[in-house]
Amino acid sequence: MSIGIFDSGIGGLTVFKEISKEFPKADIYYLGDTARVPYGNKSKETVIRYSVEAGNYLKSFGIDALIVACNTASSFALDTLKNILDIPVIGVIEPGVEMAIRFTRNKKIGVIGTSATIKSGSYKNLLEKNNVQIYQKPCPLFVPLVEEGIIEGQIAELVVREYLDDLVAEGIDTLILGCTHYPLLKKTIKKIYPHLKIVDSSQAIAEFLHRENLRFNGSGLRKIFITDESESFERFKRVLIGDIPLEKIDLSKLCTL
Amino acid sequence: MSIGIFDSGIGGLTVFKEISKEFPKADIYYLGDTARVPYGNKSKETVIRYSVEAGNYLKSFGIDALIVACNTASSFALDTLKNILDIPVIGVIEPGVEMAIRFTRNKKIGVIGTSATIKSGSYKNLLEKNNVQIYQKPCPLFVPLVEEGIIEGQIAELVVREYLDDLVAEGIDTLILGCTHYPLLKKTIKKIYPHLKIVDSSQAIAEFLHRENLRFNGSGLRKIFITDESESFERFKRVLIGDIPLEKIDLSKLCTL
Repeated sequence: MSIGIFDSGIGGLTVFKEISKEFPKADIYYLGDTARVPYGNKSKETVIRYSVEAGNYLKSFGIDALIVACNTASSFALDTLKNILDIPVIGVIEPGVEMAIRFTRNKKIGVIGTSATIKSGSYKNLLEKNNVQIYQKPCPLFVPLVEEGIIEGQIAELVVREYLDDLVAEGIDTLILGCTHYPLLKKTIKKIYPHLKIVDSSQAIAEFLHRENLRFNGSGLRKIFITDESESFERFKRVLIGDIPLEKIDLSKLCTL
Repeated sequence: MSIGIFDSGIGGLTVFKEISKEFPKADIYYLGDTARVPYGNKSKETVIRYSVEAGNYLKSFGIDALIVACNTASSFALDTLKNILDIPVIGVIEPGVEMAIRFTRNKKIGVIGTSATIKSGSYKNLLEKNNVQIYQKPCPLFVPLVEEGIIEGQIAELVVREYLDDLVAEGIDTLILGCTHYPLLKKTIKKIYPHLKIVDSSQAIAEFLHRENLRFNGSGLRKIFITDESESFERFKRVLIGDIPLEKIDLSKLCTL
């Protein structure tokens, strides 16, 4: 049994790492669409097209489930992917929302993500069904900060405060990191706002899979595909995951005219 | 007579603005490849492919010259574009280098840009022929800062210092802004390092065209094409240029399999 994970770039590696740890026997195929990263500033139509190309590519390995480890793609393309691929498709939104609902005491939940994720309203729509108050904020500088490796120190702290001070002042007790890059800023966020309960997508997805009783038994194969060479991808892969080699593929070959 | 300008996104609008001002009668066609921005973290092969698609698209309007207002594309794709298109193709590298050589007194020149531009060595190769000392630095956070509108204030100043303090400590008297986004940070850079002579690509290109005696006489038409809707593009276009409407096009339709 095998599982596919896809993200626009490096962020989903936090999910790859957690799923690898929690399901050591699963065969795991990761695709980072590094040629077209980031998805966060692209239109819904474009994100759906890219996501379908990625989903179809991973499906060609006979995966039994697909994790869309990219919040923008989860917001825009999940329904289309579920319709096209005939396997369970798990986004990052639902597991994150479920974890946040379990965490919150005062029912005030903050959500941060890319502009596209926040604008899509996907977290808001799902949270609203649970009778909580929602405070949202796009944080467009967090992804470049993480990719530049600036995850601690004065600049990281100032940028975190710039985006989150207002949100925290609203009295939230739980913060959903609605982007798979953001867990790398978790330490800095916790340092500034130690009382916040933080929802990390990678942990939320692993918990979700356990609860859904999806069992992945394979040979523990690990494959990572990228669509373009990327120094930041290589660096983060090395730090997070280690020595698994990268294979470059060309998704535009699947381009349908 | 008409001129085409292309960039991966919004940065080239600084060039569009300057060229519009300096050549009011020219018909000007701008293409921002907003669906695939940024180019700075993509491989040479991919940047060339995208640049050729953009160049061919603009050529279809019968342009008499093409400005590649993107430093990454100028570094990687200029020769290919010159070979394929049968019109003058002007990058940002050569005009910037010429201006820097005229500016410098102590022959110590700094160059900043995206990782791809710096890695390409295109500025370095051209500067070295002029018997000057070169100090280079990639500044990957400058583009997202500019796109987020953080061009002044504490965060902008800290990030500028983070990247430029070392470079300035080397004793440079001239700094080439090797990315068309960076002119928007010029005021902050000048505030911190008032003695630096700053080379702004948009001014360098306009000067270059004047010196080359390229004459553009048309009806003063202005057209701006983008490959994907983009809030930051719309915002910057409004601030820099005003009410010219945007037309969305699909370059992937030109994709050659």
